[in-house]
Amino acid sequence: MSSIQKNSIFIATSLDGCIADRDGKIDWLHEIPNPDNDDMGYSKFISGIDALIMGRTTFETVCGFDIDWPYDKPVFVLSRTMSEIPQKYKDNVQLVKGSLTQVLAEIHRQGYHHVYVDGGETIQSFLNEDLIDDMIITIIPKLLGGGKLLFSNLNATLDFECISTQIFLGKVVQNHFRRLTT
Amino acid sequence: MSSIQKNSIFIATSLDGCIADRDGKIDWLHEIPNPDNDDMGYSKFISGIDALIMGRTTFETVCGFDIDWPYDKPVFVLSRTMSEIPQKYKDNVQLVKGSLTQVLAEIHRQGYHHVYVDGGETIQSFLNEDLIDDMIITIIPKLLGGGKLLFSNLNATLDFECISTQIFLGKVVQNHFRRLTT
Repeated sequence: MSSIQKNSIFIATSLDGCIADRDGKIDWLHEIPNPDNDDMGYSKFISGIDALIMGRTTFETVCGFDIDWPYDKPVFVLSRTMSEIPQKYKDNVQLVKGSLTQVLAEIHRQGYHHVYVDGGETIQSFLNEDLIDDMIITIIPKLLGGGKLLFSNLNATLDFECISTQIFLGKVVQNHFRRLTT
Repeated sequence: MSSIQKNSIFIATSLDGCIADRDGKIDWLHEIPNPDNDDMGYSKFISGIDALIMGRTTFETVCGFDIDWPYDKPVFVLSRTMSEIPQKYKDNVQLVKGSLTQVLAEIHRQGYHHVYVDGGETIQSFLNEDLIDDMIITIIPKLLGGGKLLFSNLNATLDFECISTQIFLGKVVQNHFRRLTT
């Protein structure tokens, strides 16, 4: 387990910066042929994190996938409106409430330091409080021509640096950005 | 001169996909120290094109720069509202009107085949008619938190592939996308 506190995102966007198309769909993420099931660094990334945090929307999307629970790390669900986590997920998932600072303090108290922040609104909330240290962004090279943007309005500008870049499947590019601290 | 007809863009955006900030400013493009004046492939790109096309806004912006006319290739200015090009630019600049297909036909008739399409609105018009073949996009790794987006609504989705990627100045990433034709 990592001892350094770090919050990371690992997400795919369209070439025009969307995480979902105009109809909220994400099927375009998987259009490019991937015969060897290249996970584009996902399992390596996941092996380096201690826990995940996501919003209710992302949690309910994951619950709706026609697969078993996909995470082998603790998941924290950030929600103002949920009153409890459904029984079948209680072994893996904790509901957290409060400010992001309070929520992170609780996650750190439980011994989890490297946190994977997932879901559009949750990422946006973290960015708004300058709480994202690391972003691995995979660009699916398609212009959707509209949809839900990963990035939206922020109270302040934030500087990052691109520390590595890689092409997958001969078409997809993944850029790794790290928060620049002065 | 190239004999293959091709329309390219070479542009920089913020990490959140903006070409100008909320105040229309672009000073953030040049914040990263660049002691050796690395042009990040610009002169190589320019040497490969035959002509430029830009909108009135970009033309007037370039005219307003406190420098000599920066292009050694013919420039076509696409404008519905301008009636003529100011006298001092007439040797280098032609005003063009009509549909993009008509305008491109005129440019090709003059013997220019590889066209550099510049300026937010002009790029958007070309994309809307699927007339962009090649995009070199340099990402300045700063979240502006709002501004003028490079990409906006399109009538149809457009597939590209990332054919190369490179890091400049240890921080900036440049991705080269090519239109995928099936």
